[in-house]
Amino acid sequence: MVISNRLASIQPFYVMDILSRAKALERQGRDVIHLEIGEPDFPTPPLVAQYAADFARRGDIKYTPAAGLPDLRQAIAKYYRDRYGVQVESERIFITPGASGGFLLAMALVLNEGDKVLLEDPGYPCYSNFVRLFGGIPSLVPVDASTRFHFNPEILSAVWDRRTKGVVIASPSNPTGAVLRPDELRALVDDLERRSAFLISDEIYHGLEYDEPSSTALAFSDRVLVINSFSKYFGMTGWRVGWLVVPADCIDNAEKLAQNLFISAPTPSQYAALASFTEANLHGLELRRQVFQERRDFLCEQLQKIGFSIKTMPSGAFYVYADCSRFTSNSFDFALSLLEETGVAVTPGKDFGNNAPERYLRFSYAVTLDRLAAAVERIKFFSERGRHKRA
Amino acid sequence: MVISNRLASIQPFYVMDILSRAKALERQGRDVIHLEIGEPDFPTPPLVAQYAADFARRGDIKYTPAAGLPDLRQAIAKYYRDRYGVQVESERIFITPGASGGFLLAMALVLNEGDKVLLEDPGYPCYSNFVRLFGGIPSLVPVDASTRFHFNPEILSAVWDRRTKGVVIASPSNPTGAVLRPDELRALVDDLERRSAFLISDEIYHGLEYDEPSSTALAFSDRVLVINSFSKYFGMTGWRVGWLVVPADCIDNAEKLAQNLFISAPTPSQYAALASFTEANLHGLELRRQVFQERRDFLCEQLQKIGFSIKTMPSGAFYVYADCSRFTSNSFDFALSLLEETGVAVTPGKDFGNNAPERYLRFSYAVTLDRLAAAVERIKFFSERGRHKRA
Ligand SMILES: Cc1ncc(COP(=O)(O)O)c(C=O)c1O
Ligand SMILES: Cc1ncc(COP(=O)(O)O)c(C=O)c1O
Repeated sequence: MVISNRLASIQPFYVMDILSRAKALERQGRDVIHLEIGEPDFPTPPLVAQYAADFARRGDIKYTPAAGLPDLRQAIAKYYRDRYGVQVESERIFITPGASGGFLLAMALVLNEGDKVLLEDPGYPCYSNFVRLFGGIPSLVPVDASTRFHFNPEILSAVWDRRTKGVVIASPSNPTGAVLRPDELRALVDDLERRSAFLISDEIYHGLEYDEPSSTALAFSDRVLVINSFSKYFGMTGWRVGWLVVPADCIDNAEKLAQNLFISAPTPSQYAALASFTEANLHGLELRRQVFQERRDFLCEQLQKIGFSIKTMPSGAFYVYADCSRFTSNSFDFALSLLEETGVAVTPGKDFGNNAPERYLRFSYAVTLDRLAAAVERIKFFSERGRHKRA
Repeated sequence: MVISNRLASIQPFYVMDILSRAKALERQGRDVIHLEIGEPDFPTPPLVAQYAADFARRGDIKYTPAAGLPDLRQAIAKYYRDRYGVQVESERIFITPGASGGFLLAMALVLNEGDKVLLEDPGYPCYSNFVRLFGGIPSLVPVDASTRFHFNPEILSAVWDRRTKGVVIASPSNPTGAVLRPDELRALVDDLERRSAFLISDEIYHGLEYDEPSSTALAFSDRVLVINSFSKYFGMTGWRVGWLVVPADCIDNAEKLAQNLFISAPTPSQYAALASFTEANLHGLELRRQVFQERRDFLCEQLQKIGFSIKTMPSGAFYVYADCSRFTSNSFDFALSLLEETGVAVTPGKDFGNNAPERYLRFSYAVTLDRLAAAVERIKFFSERGRHKRA
């Protein structure tokens, strides 16, 4: 039995090394503050949990249609109307096992062997691997503070070649938290439409914005592939439920794929998701968003005071991508020592690509303000001592 | 935006036509008996549903480790010991979103572009599509009653070529319900090991056996890929939780894939699955198995009386694959008319491959004995009238 070649090109996540070391320290009784985490610290919203529990107890939990519960697809269509003022037919909305399942479906739908896909670097590491899984070639394109870590048509032009078939963008971005303005997003949508290329817009951090709300790529075209999820803003990571919006003429093909890949997304999770759209729950999510905002303001200010440089202020998600080159020339070693010496776990830049990752750390603020303050104290202590050492 | 070539080779499930027609009839007030169904009619076992509900209400529902909850992996390892007397290290067990997720993981792990994979025809239709998704070439190999619709080393020899990289088998089989004897399974495992080829053993219908219990491919080698699920025997289709067992030296690669493909299987579902292994629940499942057995005995006898030919008695799963060539030369048309005229829905042979599918229908007995009896009456009426018509 031989292992597929594709495995050699899939890097493990370096944060796993951090995480396993953090767990080892915790087993030794050390207190670890987890700023490496990629999920909200809040529990499932109580109204959602209660609804899901009531549903689960009844026990009638069969496969749903492959595209998802019709009621949930309609609720999401209504959400596009209410939140963005955008009309999306519910038939175009496919319920998937998380955004991850949305990526599986989207990539299987559009990729042929050898197709090149442009990805923002730094960016979410799984994109490359989804592309490779289906025979595509991920092309990491460096983006920096000059474009707030996002693509624009000029960048695309400079790297485009005849094998390039499409682009993935994510706004708010992981790891930078940077948000595309509506005009910037529209320019990208238009540019890719002109090229007859696909655009996959990962909108999983939508709702978690602290300056301006995001606009969806669906506002500018119904030919884009939009991915979203109940994981982040809706606070439901473990449920594994998200969605993919496809152009109308892809519905039949997406349906065939969903039948084969998933049969259906988890049924109790789909019912749980259905309970997300009540006014009471949306109000609760707004309060959570405000908490995140407070943490962002605090963490950004404190990190800058310590000497980290934040070149693009994060306007969304729950991450700060900070330049630590004042303290180290190797952010991964820095992260390991920071953990070892102070018990603060962060994610090294090299999990997000090849674009000067040794200069960057991702700090997640999915912990309480108290814990964040404690982490800041420790980071400060560690960084200052480091500087003294080098002096 | 261009659609992937692979979509052209993925056939829709013909049963979907049956299903949508059945729904239309139901909307008109017609009573439809659903013998086309691929899932048990029983609800989630009450103990499992209750446990899951209690867990869901607490709301602490985050991502689990990519390979799954350690407790669940250990419970499955124990299940292999208790049920089969086989030692499987829990580290080799990956929790997946259903057996479907197990196939995604397994195929991504072993397939390279152009690899040929041998599949039993008739067989579960998704196998071909999983193979195609990852650049492989599915090769449907006809099997018939002479080998109880299963592969054996002679069949493999006859079709093997240098591009062939592996084989998928399923026992009990969907659609035939045929079960491999331990010596037959061992012969296949040994043969493929000798060829250094992979064997994916789909054991999703294990536990639903009515003559002899199945043995697992893991009893004969720890180099096989074994897929199983909580969907069928455990009665938990909608929860989307299953597992894949990999050889020890594939653990790291399977972990990388799971992190990227799924992040993790649904957390409430994993907790629900954990509650499956209590003695009380296993006892309940045994009672359900007996109910299925009674239905099988009844349905096989009745179909034969009517004039269907069952060349290999189904010893497992909840399907009868019956030859209807005495009544029709086109089983799909027969299925459509049967539905139209009598309200009995069945699955046409052509959903299971190219091996004389027009002769076969799959009857599922995931309905109560009462309903099964009513269906039999209708089928009898329809078949006899058909014969008269032709006479
Ligand atoms: C940018 C981005 N996209 C997609 C995902 C996948 O999330 P899920 O599958 O839980 O919806 C994540 C998870 O961290 C993410 O950060
Ligand atoms: C033979 C076989 N394998 C795998 C599956 C997938 O099941 P699941 O993903 O629900 O575990 C099915 C479902 O019908 C099946 O019949």
